[in-house]
This record gives sequence, C-alpha cells and structure tokens, in this order.
Amino acid sequence: MTDALSIARDLIRCPSVTPVDAGALGVLEKVLGAAGFTCHRVTFSEPGTADVDNLYARIGSEGPHITFAGHTDVVPPGEESAWSVGAFSGEVKDGILHGRGAVDMKGGIACSVAAVLEHLAANGGKPRADGQKSGSGSISFLITGDEEDVSINGTIKLLKWAAARGEKFDHCVLGEPSNVETLGDTIKVGRRGSQSGTLVVDGVQGHVAYPHRASNPVPDISRLIVAISDEPLDHGSAQFQASNLEFVSVDVGNKAFNVIPGEARAKFNIRYNDNHTQASLRELVETRLAKACGNRIKARIVWEPSNSNVFVTKPGPFTDLAVAAIEEVTGRKPELSTSGGTSDARFIASYCPVIEFGLVGQTMHQIDERVPVADLEKLTKVYRGILTRYFG
Amino acid sequence: MTDALSIARDLIRCPSVTPVDAGALGVLEKVLGAAGFTCHRVTFSEPGTADVDNLYARIGSEGPHITFAGHTDVVPPGEESAWSVGAFSGEVKDGILHGRGAVDMKGGIACSVAAVLEHLAANGGKPRADGQKSGSGSISFLITGDEEDVSINGTIKLLKWAAARGEKFDHCVLGEPSNVETLGDTIKVGRRGSQSGTLVVDGVQGHVAYPHRASNPVPDISRLIVAISDEPLDHGSAQFQASNLEFVSVDVGNKAFNVIPGEARAKFNIRYNDNHTQASLRELVETRLAKACGNRIKARIVWEPSNSNVFVTKPGPFTDLAVAAIEEVTGRKPELSTSGGTSDARFIASYCPVIEFGLVGQTMHQIDERVPVADLEKLTKVYRGILTRYFG
Ligand SMILES: [Zn+2]
Ligand SMILES: [Zn+2]
Repeated sequence: MTDALSIARDLIRCPSVTPVDAGALGVLEKVLGAAGFTCHRVTFSEPGTADVDNLYARIGSEGPHITFAGHTDVVPPGEESAWSVGAFSGEVKDGILHGRGAVDMKGGIACSVAAVLEHLAANGGKPRADGQKSGSGSISFLITGDEEDVSINGTIKLLKWAAARGEKFDHCVLGEPSNVETLGDTIKVGRRGSQSGTLVVDGVQGHVAYPHRASNPVPDISRLIVAISDEPLDHGSAQFQASNLEFVSVDVGNKAFNVIPGEARAKFNIRYNDNHTQASLRELVETRLAKACGNRIKARIVWEPSNSNVFVTKPGPFTDLAVAAIEEVTGRKPELSTSGGTSDARFIASYCPVIEFGLVGQTMHQIDERVPVADLEKLTKVYRGILTRYFG
Repeated sequence: MTDALSIARDLIRCPSVTPVDAGALGVLEKVLGAAGFTCHRVTFSEPGTADVDNLYARIGSEGPHITFAGHTDVVPPGEESAWSVGAFSGEVKDGILHGRGAVDMKGGIACSVAAVLEHLAANGGKPRADGQKSGSGSISFLITGDEEDVSINGTIKLLKWAAARGEKFDHCVLGEPSNVETLGDTIKVGRRGSQSGTLVVDGVQGHVAYPHRASNPVPDISRLIVAISDEPLDHGSAQFQASNLEFVSVDVGNKAFNVIPGEARAKFNIRYNDNHTQASLRELVETRLAKACGNRIKARIVWEPSNSNVFVTKPGPFTDLAVAAIEEVTGRKPELSTSGGTSDARFIASYCPVIEFGLVGQTMHQIDERVPVADLEKLTKVYRGILTRYFG
C-alpha cells in the first residue's frame, strides 16, 4: 500500500526518536526502490555524537531536478500514559491518525512519497512524459534521521555528500508542518538568520568602600545593554519582519556584597533579516557598541559560530506554482511567511531555492500529536499539483 | 615589665589567629589584675561558629567611665617564609617591632594598658586622685578575640553582657590603627552605614524568535541599574562624604542563547552617611525603584539584614581633648575622619561616644607587619595625655 496514510502509519510505527532509526528509512527505501529510485543509505559520524542514518533516493538523470526533503526522526513521546493511543501505534480514530511524527513530519514525508508515486505512475514511470523539450527531469528525496536534536549528522552533511557526487538540485520542497491553523494557510519561504554573542565588559575590581579606586562593570554593562537593545536594527524588509536583538543573560557571579567585580558578561541572540549578512550585522553591532562605550568603557564581543544565515526564496515561478497548487486543492491563498524557528531549510538554501509546505503544526512535539486523514489526502494532492506544474 | 613594648611582644608571641586565643587575653588579665582591675573572662557561643574568649576588666566604681576597646585576635600570617622574622616572634630589629598584630592591634592595646598603668601609678592607684569634685572615675578594657573574622562572638555580645551587668560607659577609645601615614594624622570619629540588597526583576520566559510573547527582564534590570546608580543619594554631610550605592553583581544564569529568561537579579551595597537612617534609606531606594519601574516593569528588593548603621561622634569636649593630647605628643592636628572600612566601633557607638585612634595602618594584614618602637612610646604618651585631660 503506497497511499499516504499507509506510509505514514508504517513510519509512525518505527519509534525513531533521534538518533535511532528503528527501521523508518527502510520503509521509504523499500517503497521508493520498488518505484525505480536509486537509493543510498549514508551514515554520518562526528566525535561526541551518535552515528545517524540518512537516505538519498533519486529517479531520473537530467534536469529539472526537484527534491523533497524531510526528517524521519521524532522528538520523544513524553509521558506515554498521557497519550489517548500508543505514541507509536499509528492508530486512526474518528478519521484522525494519531502518533508521534504524525505532522512533524512523517505525515508530510508520506504525502510527498505518495504524490511522487502517483505522478510517476501517470507519466510512464518517469518524472516527465516522453517527447517534452527540456530534459526528462529528476525527482529525489533527501531524508535525514538527525533534525530534531543536534542536526550535525543530518541534512548539512547529506547535502555536502550529494554535492561531492555531482548532484545538482534545482528546487526543493521541505515538508515541515508549515501551516499555522489550516492546511493551505502558510508556505515558509525563508527564515531570519540567527547570530549569538557575548558582550564582555572589563572593569577594575575593588572594595565597595573605595569605589573611586575601582571601575564597576555592572552599571557599564547595563548602559551598553540598554543602548544596544533600544535602537532597532532595521524596520523589516519586503519579506521579513524587523530584525531583533535580545539579551538573554547577564552574569557576574560575584557572591560578595562588599566587592566591586572586575568583569561582567551578557549573552545575546540576534534574529536578522535580509537587510544584513552575518558580516554586516556583526559590524553594525560592533559600531554601535563602540559608540555606546565612548572612550570610557572597555568592552568587546565574543561572537558564537553560526550556520543559521538568513535566507529567502523570492516570489517567482517556483513559489507561484506552489501557491497555485495549494489554492486549487484547499481554496486558500497561502501567506509567504518567513517567521518562526529554525529548520533544515537553512542548510538547503545554500544549494537551491527551497520552500516549506507540509501539514498543520498545532500538535507537533505534543502529547497526542495527530493529523486528520483528510489533511494527508489534501497534502498529497497539493504535492501532486506541484509536480504536474513543475514538469508541465 | 609593663611598658608598651614588653606587653606588645608578649601579645605578639601568642599566635592568636581568630578564633584561637593562644594565651593573649591571659597576658592582659595578669597585668591588669596586678594593677587592681577586676577581670572577667567571658566565652560566647553561637551555633555554626567557634566559641570565642573575651575580657572585660574595670577599675573604679563611679563615673566618669572611659573604656579602652580592642581585639587580640589577628589575621593569619600568610606565607610565613616570606616574613623577615618569625610572624609570631615579636622580634625588634633596628628599633622596629615585627610581627602579626604589631599595628592591628596588639601594639595599640599594649600602649593603652601601659598608659593606664602609668596613669594609675601617678594617681595613687585610682583613675582620679582624691579630693576631686565629680566622681572618682572608672577605667575599663573591653577586649575581644573575635574581630577579624565573623565578629559574632565578640564586642557585640560583650557590650550586651556588660549592659546586662549594669555597666555604663561614658566614652570609648578604640585603638585600631587609625593613622594613614604618620602617627597623629587621623582620628576616626564615625563610619558610614552599610546596607545590602538584591534587586529582582520578574519577566516572562519565552523563545528569542517570539519576543512579543515574552517579557525580557535583562534590558529591564539594566535600565533599573542605570537609573538607580546614576542619581546620587546625597552630596555628603558635615562629617561624611557622599553616600554611595554600588551594584556588585547582576545574574541571570541562562545558558541557552535561544531562551528569554524569566527573572534577573542584581546585588547592591550602599555605604550611607548621617543624612539617612537604615529605614529612610530603604524607603528612598524603594521610591526611586518604583519611579524607574513605572507601570511596566515588575521589580522588588530583598534587603539583607545589617548591623552596620551609620554613626558619628560629633566634635565636642571629648574629641577636643583627644586632639589636644595628639597635638601635644606628635605636633600634628589630626583629621577627624569617617572614611574607611568597618570596625567594632559600629557596635560601641550604640552605647557611648567612640573615637578610634591607634598606630599607623600601612602594614596591617601584610607580610612583615611592623611598628617603630618610637611609635609605641608616642601612642602611650597620647593615651596618657587623654587620661590626664579626661580625669583632670
Ligand atoms: Zn520537523
Ligand atoms: Zn583591627
């Protein structure tokens, strides 16, 4: 059975809590292999982390090449006794499929696989029916088992591995649960970048009875936090809300009430939009810091490494065909959103334009994660519509 | 031998690092008992601290009553091999007495005992020679072994114990090393009060990607720290420098760069002058905090218990006679100072006017703590001059 519900149930029944695969990738490998895909199981390692399995499957050897990305790993079920049905039972009750991963994102993967199989069946087993002008086309799946936890042995390495093999992707659909309330309300077309750092202020230690012999970094770092927090980084862009800097901690660790400390530190995180690159953003913050310090305060920033650059897939033919497919099936015109937390799209965006469209995220990571079977059917039709238009 | 040098040497040879007495109080008890003093050894206890010995010795039963206060305990010698002579040897080299406690304050106690003995010898064994009008006078010693460490089983309890016995003090001289550079440069006549507290700001925890759903206490506590630090508490008073508030720590303890924390805390200490009482000071700070918070920021102060109230002995006949005695011996007119760290004078001030005058503090708590024998002789003369004037 290669309909979305059957594949989703088979996936849910594998308790693939990161980094365990528990047979999940095998479910996909079997179905895709039978449909003519060339499958590669790739295991990645890194000292200090668990080895993780990944799957790359492709059919066709020419462009255009559309890839469906996703992850089969899930977050832990939490208190299993709190679930209405077994967290890994894949039970359907009143037309609703229950289980960890139902929406995030075994359900989404199942719909993409089912849609691709239908599409191939309708086109003589090929991405594009014979006799068309520009290439016979390729469809692939980039599936990882390392998204929900550290994301080290997953998509980022699988993309590098594929590039080293000469794989070229033209477009990507990532089936994460992008919709907020109803299927069709939201496509995610980008994400703000994320950059963290630590502000360090050097003072001069001393005794509180003799403050003129010391230089207290506490009011100084407070002044800098206020100055840096108060001035907006920008006012948003065509596709993004305003960038935002949040100080998430400030720490001295001085236990003595009679000692003026010698150093204070404050951690911050910036979510930034496409008005900035990582380099220009760092420069902007450093410039503001220097201004706030003047000649008096001695401060510096220690930047954290970051692989969460800002990215956006600009409106164009690819987003248009996705919107058209969604409107046709759901009757809704989705918002092209760039808000929300991070996903593997940040890695994929370095290789090709990527959009995220999947199920409704409301129950993700919760007890009784679930999806109406009707949503699985609709999402399969949306993906089908995308494929028809993409290769049409 | 009851000269100051001999008594000081005998005291230094007792390694009385707090809370150990090592025979130090016995040295005084023997000398004072022989001169006609009634001596009381009192041991105080408190759960969680070591028992500590104290000495109260008095001669005379009428007023006026002057008491010499002091401590025989010393801070540890540190690296003993770094000393030029044994830290507890009491050796005299080139006219200089070396040893832990030489200036802080076994030397000072020795001078006061020697001066009192000389005074009594010159007055027929009594504080005041016969035939004078207003009372035959009393002289006492309030000596503790618990000043350098926690100060729990020392002067504060000895004063309560004495009050319960009906002891009344008219004036006190505390022989701490009050002079900054040269004998005669400084009398201490008061100290600022000390009050500590913790400012707590309550925010609402959240994810950095959704700051509008959270309330970040970090910029808020920073704003409050700046507001409270920037406005002076006062501009000083006749005998004190300006009060000062220092934030000594600010802490959140958030390790995650992507989480907006729910709470921030900042510790502060205030050194305050006689423009304030503890109660009025707390009210002043609370009022400023409320103003800085407005309707938006939720903050509160947790006040630390404090027994360091501000005190001052105003210029008058008692300070005048001390200044006159100092000028006569040293040729210097001492500054009446209220600066510097804390001492047992803060406890004594609740019972009677107190001044601090002793040796020069430069080497206190250091390797090679030491005092010129000439200074011991001069300080003995100063105390003698105080007694002569006091009972004259
Ligand atoms: Zn996911
Ligand atoms: Zn002392």
